Amino acid sequence: MKLVFEKSELVKGVSIVQKAVSVRTTMNILECILIDASASSIFLTGNDLDLGIQTEVPGEIVEKGRVAIDAKLFSEYVKKLPEGQIVVETTKDDLCIISYGDNSCEIQGMSADEFSYIPEVEKVNRLTISQFQLKELINQTIFSLALNDLNPMMTGELFELMNKELRVIGLDSHRIALRKLRIEDKNDEVYAVIPGKSLKEIAGILSSENDDMVNIYFTEKHALFEFDNTKVVSRLIEGKYFNVNQMFSTDSSTRVKVNRTELIDSIERTMIFIKESDKRPVIFDIADNTMRIFVKSTKGRGMEFLNVEMEGTNLKIGFNPKFLLDALKVIDDEIITLSFVNSKSPCFIKDEEDTYLYLILPVNFTED
Amino acid sequence: MKLVFEKSELVKGVSIVQKAVSVRTTMNILECILIDASASSIFLTGNDLDLGIQTEVPGEIVEKGRVAIDAKLFSEYVKKLPEGQIVVETTKDDLCIISYGDNSCEIQGMSADEFSYIPEVEKVNRLTISQFQLKELINQTIFSLALNDLNPMMTGELFELMNKELRVIGLDSHRIALRKLRIEDKNDEVYAVIPGKSLKEIAGILSSENDDMVNIYFTEKHALFEFDNTKVVSRLIEGKYFNVNQMFSTDSSTRVKVNRTELIDSIERTMIFIKESDKRPVIFDIADNTMRIFVKSTKGRGMEFLNVEMEGTNLKIGFNPKFLLDALKVIDDEIITLSFVNSKSPCFIKDEEDTYLYLILPVNFTED
Repeated sequence: MKLVFEKSELVKGVSIVQKAVSVRTTMNILECILIDASASSIFLTGNDLDLGIQTEVPGEIVEKGRVAIDAKLFSEYVKKLPEGQIVVETTKDDLCIISYGDNSCEIQGMSADEFSYIPEVEKVNRLTISQFQLKELINQTIFSLALNDLNPMMTGELFELMNKELRVIGLDSHRIALRKLRIEDKNDEVYAVIPGKSLKEIAGILSSENDDMVNIYFTEKHALFEFDNTKVVSRLIEGKYFNVNQMFSTDSSTRVKVNRTELIDSIERTMIFIKESDKRPVIFDIADNTMRIFVKSTKGRGMEFLNVEMEGTNLKIGFNPKFLLDALKVIDDEIITLSFVNSKSPCFIKDEEDTYLYLILPVNFTED
Repeated sequence: MKLVFEKSELVKGVSIVQKAVSVRTTMNILECILIDASASSIFLTGNDLDLGIQTEVPGEIVEKGRVAIDAKLFSEYVKKLPEGQIVVETTKDDLCIISYGDNSCEIQGMSADEFSYIPEVEKVNRLTISQFQLKELINQTIFSLALNDLNPMMTGELFELMNKELRVIGLDSHRIALRKLRIEDKNDEVYAVIPGKSLKEIAGILSSENDDMVNIYFTEKHALFEFDNTKVVSRLIEGKYFNVNQMFSTDSSTRVKVNRTELIDSIERTMIFIKESDKRPVIFDIADNTMRIFVKSTKGRGMEFLNVEMEGTNLKIGFNPKFLLDALKVIDDEIITLSFVNSKSPCFIKDEEDTYLYLILPVNFTED
């Protein structure tokens, strides 16, 4: 095999597929990138068996061939090369020689036969949205997942498309994040739980342009994302996702309109007095169009007053400040609405247009 | 005590003195900042007993007093406040109340009587240079120190002023960094070893303006740095520093002029193949106006060719690449000169104007 690349194109391709390469494993082949130039195009592939990414890289095929090469070494090396032409070739025994000008390096490759190609996924149950929208949907919900949870369903996000509405839901045992998107184009119905780890890597590759589209196809076991020159296949989490609708059906007895930035700043100041370990809540005391936010711990006390627009009854309720901040920081609206039932029931943050809903469970606290 | 500050002034002062506050200690008072407004000015002080920093902060003294307050909590809190006026006051039992507008926090302070004030240092053996120059001298040498070494002298830097020349020297058992500066003003003679830890913190506070000056005074046990509204006292490392002059006296048999950026890039590329743990050297093979730089390890081989201007005999010599890079990265010249004696003797990097000299010991290597 002998291929000639422009440095920037090769680096771009390697960076994309590297996201699907295992970092630490007992199988060397899983730490490799496959370079496949056995036909008329050059494809790079990374595959950790949960997530596979393949991308086409422009380049000249001087001699056809394929080889698997250590992803970390290859990527570090090509990133450090100067701009210009890079030649990647193999000699017998899959030894890879990467050269530019008079300079070169040798990395022992592995046989491409040992590499697991990404599975072929049938193109059914299509959903087309912009790359930017998908990236936003993921980033605005993914923090709610319990990535190391014993319940595997909590490590994934539900993508549900029904009646021209896409709902993306992530949750753990303390909170739910839900984003909705109107889909006007003709699309199929979808119900699939995608692992959070896959979504995180995909969000890292997607462009931020609203004009760049992504096609997503869902089979029973896999989701296939196609965009630009790249193809991503993720396994799905099998089974039925939580029925979250029943958790949203309560009426609120207290509603508060508050400036989001001011609320974030106040929570961040009071949480200085909370040690991670002692799990004290930040307490909201809502009365007379004022929200008093306070914390008391062995380190000290913090107290903030926010002017709010209030409806309903007075309320005192405690929260893990981190859960509130996670949600507040991904909302774009400057004025947001918090709804409460009582001090034992979840708080809802949702907008009138019904595009997002964040549910956060309160924490018990003792008055002292 | 009751004081009124502008937020930005208070944050600036706290950030400066915090550099002398112990992070983890069994004595709570060492984790405090002293706020002293017992006379007509407001002084903040941090003191970990090796290094003490005092700075004057503008502000209104409504009621005189002084208190010691946890540095980390106080600093985190005031940094998160909005711009504007901040009131810091104490009630009985040194309870500190920090307030702005309607909002406030309480932090339990400690009695100022428990706080160790920084020692008074007699203003003798003066050296005056610009803050920028001192910052540069420190940053261009400090990486050579062995901060955790058994030999305490290796944890400090020699500041030696003689015959209108300041020499700043740092070394460990593998290398020496030396910077010289002509001092035209009248100054006293100086010979003092300042702990690297103190110098690192001082470099972090100094301005980068050539017009801002710093006065340094040296007694037998202390160095006092005076600049802007700030006073820094560091203990000195007592004893005689290494006689480095004898290490510089050898003649070279090979001299190479090379482009510094190209050399850095080549070393960085070849070092990808070196595991931190296996301590393999980067090998320089110098012959016929070419410097071949190569590495061979279990991970692979890297090879680079640099055009150089060469004088003297051919040479093959190995180095720890990190030691070379540390020195190369703080030199400003684009074309630098490397001098060698033989493969067992140190390499020198020095300029014709004699403002810097870096010595790096070679590493044995086996040909294979």
